[in-house]
Amino acid sequence: MNLRLVAAALGALIAVLGLLMSTAVPWSLHVQDGQHFAFLLVIVSCVIVGGTVFFLLRDPDAEYGLRDAFAIVTLGWLSVGLVGAVPYVVTGSLPTFTDAVFESFSGFTTTGATVLDDIEKLPHSVLFWRSLTHWLGGMGIIVLSVAILPLLGVGGMAMFKAEVPSPVVDKIKPTVAATAKTLWKVYVVFTVAEILLLYVAGMDFFDSVCHTFGTLATGGFSTKNLSIGYYQSPLIDVIVIVFMLIAGINFTLHYQALTGNWRAYLRSEECRLYLIIYGAATAFICWNIYGTGEGGFWAGLNKSAFQTASIMTTTGYGTTDWERWPWACQWLLVTLMFMGGCAGSTAGGMKCMRLVIVGKHVLRELKLLIHPRAVIPLKIDRRVVSPAIINSILAFIGLFVGVWVVSTLLLVILNIDVVTAVGATTATLSNIGPGLNKVGAADSYGWLPVPAKWILIFNMIVGRLELYTVFVLMVPDFWRK
Amino acid sequence: MNLRLVAAALGALIAVLGLLMSTAVPWSLHVQDGQHFAFLLVIVSCVIVGGTVFFLLRDPDAEYGLRDAFAIVTLGWLSVGLVGAVPYVVTGSLPTFTDAVFESFSGFTTTGATVLDDIEKLPHSVLFWRSLTHWLGGMGIIVLSVAILPLLGVGGMAMFKAEVPSPVVDKIKPTVAATAKTLWKVYVVFTVAEILLLYVAGMDFFDSVCHTFGTLATGGFSTKNLSIGYYQSPLIDVIVIVFMLIAGINFTLHYQALTGNWRAYLRSEECRLYLIIYGAATAFICWNIYGTGEGGFWAGLNKSAFQTASIMTTTGYGTTDWERWPWACQWLLVTLMFMGGCAGSTAGGMKCMRLVIVGKHVLRELKLLIHPRAVIPLKIDRRVVSPAIINSILAFIGLFVGVWVVSTLLLVILNIDVVTAVGATTATLSNIGPGLNKVGAADSYGWLPVPAKWILIFNMIVGRLELYTVFVLMVPDFWRK
Repeated sequence: MNLRLVAAALGALIAVLGLLMSTAVPWSLHVQDGQHFAFLLVIVSCVIVGGTVFFLLRDPDAEYGLRDAFAIVTLGWLSVGLVGAVPYVVTGSLPTFTDAVFESFSGFTTTGATVLDDIEKLPHSVLFWRSLTHWLGGMGIIVLSVAILPLLGVGGMAMFKAEVPSPVVDKIKPTVAATAKTLWKVYVVFTVAEILLLYVAGMDFFDSVCHTFGTLATGGFSTKNLSIGYYQSPLIDVIVIVFMLIAGINFTLHYQALTGNWRAYLRSEECRLYLIIYGAATAFICWNIYGTGEGGFWAGLNKSAFQTASIMTTTGYGTTDWERWPWACQWLLVTLMFMGGCAGSTAGGMKCMRLVIVGKHVLRELKLLIHPRAVIPLKIDRRVVSPAIINSILAFIGLFVGVWVVSTLLLVILNIDVVTAVGATTATLSNIGPGLNKVGAADSYGWLPVPAKWILIFNMIVGRLELYTVFVLMVPDFWRK
Repeated sequence: MNLRLVAAALGALIAVLGLLMSTAVPWSLHVQDGQHFAFLLVIVSCVIVGGTVFFLLRDPDAEYGLRDAFAIVTLGWLSVGLVGAVPYVVTGSLPTFTDAVFESFSGFTTTGATVLDDIEKLPHSVLFWRSLTHWLGGMGIIVLSVAILPLLGVGGMAMFKAEVPSPVVDKIKPTVAATAKTLWKVYVVFTVAEILLLYVAGMDFFDSVCHTFGTLATGGFSTKNLSIGYYQSPLIDVIVIVFMLIAGINFTLHYQALTGNWRAYLRSEECRLYLIIYGAATAFICWNIYGTGEGGFWAGLNKSAFQTASIMTTTGYGTTDWERWPWACQWLLVTLMFMGGCAGSTAGGMKCMRLVIVGKHVLRELKLLIHPRAVIPLKIDRRVVSPAIINSILAFIGLFVGVWVVSTLLLVILNIDVVTAVGATTATLSNIGPGLNKVGAADSYGWLPVPAKWILIFNMIVGRLELYTVFVLMVPDFWRK
């Protein structure tokens, strides 16, 4: 590993983060919440420290190796999460270190779990920063999952190698830069569109911006204690539903659609399954909650469509308390928590694609029992998936379940009841946000003991970085020359 | 598929079952419970019908093909389970068809879930038959998992191909017969040993026999409503613990040990892990329940050792209600429900071996990220495991989880609460017996609606037959010429 290169990259990252943080200052000045000095202090420190490290250590001719890339991704996410916690502390919004770090990582990993019981009392600039961490995290994730992880071969993401047209494909730096630019354009287009639509639908401009950040990043931080439920507006619900669903689809498909190839969505098996499961789950829930106090048919359809989208895309916004719904709805939503959205989107969870491949693998093994000597290729979108990718995906799911079991056990040992522990682990590892029972939609994570918060922070990070990106740093081999 | 061959085999199976059923008659005569005529009726019918089919259709020179073997295993288990239900009906012990079939399959699959609220009111002969179904199911499972499934390549069991010395290995019939004889000797030795020990420890002879059948088959049917807890005898607890643990170990290791190679246990990675997890879980639970009303240190150790063994080996006997234990103990026990015992034992669940391989696969993928071009073999007991076997095991686990999720969803749709549904699905799919909440250790499955019982019967069968053996019959390809 080239330590110098890694340090330079982290320096640049922090300096850029400082510059982006400056977008919170106008909000502070606009509403006069008195936090602009606190923000300026953090911004200047970030730019000076990060910039200095970058300019001292940078080496424009160096090429990144595999280990450098792993280190930059994981350590980069860690640094950004830690630095992002500073505004919460200096503004006095979250005085304890653990809570600030929890909220910051929850933002950057687009999880949306909060330690705050009363969100609305936060200064506007802090609320903006909180939502901005989602949006930036979402940007990071898109590039990570479409451009970086495929090159690193993490969790079967190699399947998406070079799906986006790019001038150079054999070198990490230019490929990543080109892909990032392309996808970020798409991300910005959707961002502008949703802000405008929400504003037109009656949300004020500040809230439109913050909720757009939370939607497109599948984050879930709101500026209201009642989340989207605050607005009681079916029109706003529908806008948020549509953009949550958009955010849960592979962004390379959006790129293709925006450049004229609208059929790309339907040609992708993963996207088809995602939409079919979404439709089926919504219909099932709508049918089950009919007559249980969620209003008439249209109100019930709205609520089931919203909640299913929110959980499938791992956003975590709410318009109702689905823990009062019939058990069958709850069980279905919990299983969807594990699945998550499409690979290459901002959604978390295991991703539809991986489950498609597991399903096909299971069916193939059935056929192999009847024809033991047959060679049966596993295909996705008419292309053969290599055994290496299948192995990688199966290992990913194994690791996911392993982390899930251990994390839940640790929480339960800390004397948290089983349902809350299961909910908290799932909601953080899948980057959803609200969990079950005492960390449900109507509750915060604030009451949890400090060790539990750190376990959940760990879950958010490993869940977001597709597990292997983090765990690879824990293998002794990684640090050997 | 050679239908004639399959029918002949099923005929033979039912005739033999009839003969074995006759062992219930002496008990009936001994205690004069008045059921001997009912049993004789069933026995004679089985022998006549089964025998006729066998002698009309048998073909001594025919060799079994792959599909014949699959059909015989699954249809054989189904026929035995259905015929085994008849004594419950004709003796009036379980008047409804569904309940009788549930109890019968619960016996033959060595699950141990019961629909009876008051076991002790059953006639002695029926109690004996109930326990005998466990013992026979256990015999079936040992041969199935050590001799038949490896040849069929189900769920990675091919790993154990020809582990037991056998004169002919390339033909199914002689291999199976030779292996069966060898392993059954071991099974009978343990059976005699446990009966004697329990009798000496103060249990009456009838109960010693029934509880031995329930232990060695990792079944869990008792003759007492309070299960083993009825005896309040630490000596009996220890005997049952030891034999449960024995029953959860691969019987080929027992064969090696009984023929002088005592180190076989320690040389097997699976067995080592099984014992280590058992020890660690017992210690953890013992530490956690200390001072929570389970008595002093020794009483607590006894109870944790018993309950851990009962669940890890998927037996389901109880000496206490562990649903009152601290959450951490409950969570640990629930996760152990999924693992189960060793492959090649009478225990259910996913089996330690499969989880060992998943763990090694996950670690190997981590190393491959650092050395993408390396070839890293996956070894168990110093032998390389082929990619085909790894694929098969990963697919098995995928299918297990899939069936688990769907079964739980169906139960929840039938308006059963989530915890009960999760418990019932896990307890039947892993062939444990008692589940959680309303189907917990102190409850029966009798109150469940009829469709729920059939879902659980399905779970017991597919769980016991390593899923693929049953599912392969549902592939259209299987029935094509």
